[in-house]
Amino acid sequence: MKRVMLTVAYDGTNYCGWQIQPNGITIEEELNRHLSRLLREPVRVSGASRTDSGVHALGNLCVFDTETRIPAEKLCYAVNQSLPPDIVVQKSQEVPLDFHPRKWESAKTYEYTIYNRSLPNPVLRLYSYFVYRPLDVERMRRGAAFLVGEHDFQSFCSAGSQVETTVRTVHSLEVEQEGPVIRIRITGSGFLYNMVRIIAGTLLRVGSGFWEPEMVGEILEKQDRSAAGPTAPAKGLCLMGIQLKNPPFFPGKGIDTHGRM
Amino acid sequence: MKRVMLTVAYDGTNYCGWQIQPNGITIEEELNRHLSRLLREPVRVSGASRTDSGVHALGNLCVFDTETRIPAEKLCYAVNQSLPPDIVVQKSQEVPLDFHPRKWESAKTYEYTIYNRSLPNPVLRLYSYFVYRPLDVERMRRGAAFLVGEHDFQSFCSAGSQVETTVRTVHSLEVEQEGPVIRIRITGSGFLYNMVRIIAGTLLRVGSGFWEPEMVGEILEKQDRSAAGPTAPAKGLCLMGIQLKNPPFFPGKGIDTHGRM
Repeated sequence: MKRVMLTVAYDGTNYCGWQIQPNGITIEEELNRHLSRLLREPVRVSGASRTDSGVHALGNLCVFDTETRIPAEKLCYAVNQSLPPDIVVQKSQEVPLDFHPRKWESAKTYEYTIYNRSLPNPVLRLYSYFVYRPLDVERMRRGAAFLVGEHDFQSFCSAGSQVETTVRTVHSLEVEQEGPVIRIRITGSGFLYNMVRIIAGTLLRVGSGFWEPEMVGEILEKQDRSAAGPTAPAKGLCLMGIQLKNPPFFPGKGIDTHGRM
Repeated sequence: MKRVMLTVAYDGTNYCGWQIQPNGITIEEELNRHLSRLLREPVRVSGASRTDSGVHALGNLCVFDTETRIPAEKLCYAVNQSLPPDIVVQKSQEVPLDFHPRKWESAKTYEYTIYNRSLPNPVLRLYSYFVYRPLDVERMRRGAAFLVGEHDFQSFCSAGSQVETTVRTVHSLEVEQEGPVIRIRITGSGFLYNMVRIIAGTLLRVGSGFWEPEMVGEILEKQDRSAAGPTAPAKGLCLMGIQLKNPPFFPGKGIDTHGRM
């Protein structure tokens, strides 16, 4: 038996998120189905990040155990032959039998994309959140600065989440602008439920002038979800990648995240 | 009565192109239907560019005549309320009753997007052509240079097209690279049927090393469609905009074509 780790990219538009659930098709379910058929044994993948319904990913990770003799690094090409075009395994590699990316120290990078113009752009509609009111990116950057570092992010965590602690470390939080496209790029040690989308919703309030940038620091201190902005829509969010810290195998090259239109 | 010109952006994925036809839904048909319902009179738009099935646009133009009292510049907001999200009118303005963008001197800009990597990117799959074999952009640029200027582009025109002359002027033809994304950006006085997609298919042969860059000049001289490369797939093509030369009205601002992911 061996353990294989997959780097998975997907367009989340037509899926009910990562995790298997009774009400719709999920990424986990599709991977299990296609891997089981390919390997002729029951395969159950276990993911590093359970992305929500409609959220995209370029580099989510998952592992599964298999008896197959197909070399691990060839599996991505084989399973991509049958997977639907909105799920593409970017890499497959053998990892130690006791390795799990969710239990390993890592940093995750997310991007939240906003399309800020008077009228929406149809070719970006599935991968960005359209915002009509003009946004001041410099204000968003000043607000974002309050969130960098180790903080208790309880104000930026949706109710219903069961975690031991709401303390997390944000390594970097940048707001980039390219014409009408604004990207919030965040890297951290881990994220609470809906944390990136609530940060996006809060920075949108700052960018539109509704809140002062300093308000972000105050929201953080309040440790109260109702103090922060709304949860921004799922379709603007993309899990860009998960960087494992000194993994017990040769990490190789991940997906090139420059894949922008 | 007044004549209104619309600047129209659309995701061509789910349409059988611009022009009305019996076998599927088209952009022209959708615009007619929604404008007729909004204005309570039969509306028939007439387009500047009849884009093919699956081709996208950020700035196609069309005109129609109407008796409505709604100010022309407000019409885009009104019709966008009912149009599907993959068609968005970016601008509406009054033009002289005898004006038609197809009959006016103009330059059109197209972009052909290629995703060049060992594995496809699911979030770019609908708006780019995935090419596995590595492409040499510098070779593509050298090949592209042969096409700039006034030439007989018969080799780059699909059969079945009825035109008086196959002479066209290409003002500029650039090949840009941003990570795995390669964009062929072409501006010209007018384009023959499938001309941009055949140019893309030809430059792909040059970029992959199959043909020398000088071959592009030879293909041009042959005036024979069978000498050029294949017609590249529709989904990589986007009509970025149509620039009217000294139009008989205030042109205003078009769509900002920086709307990239």
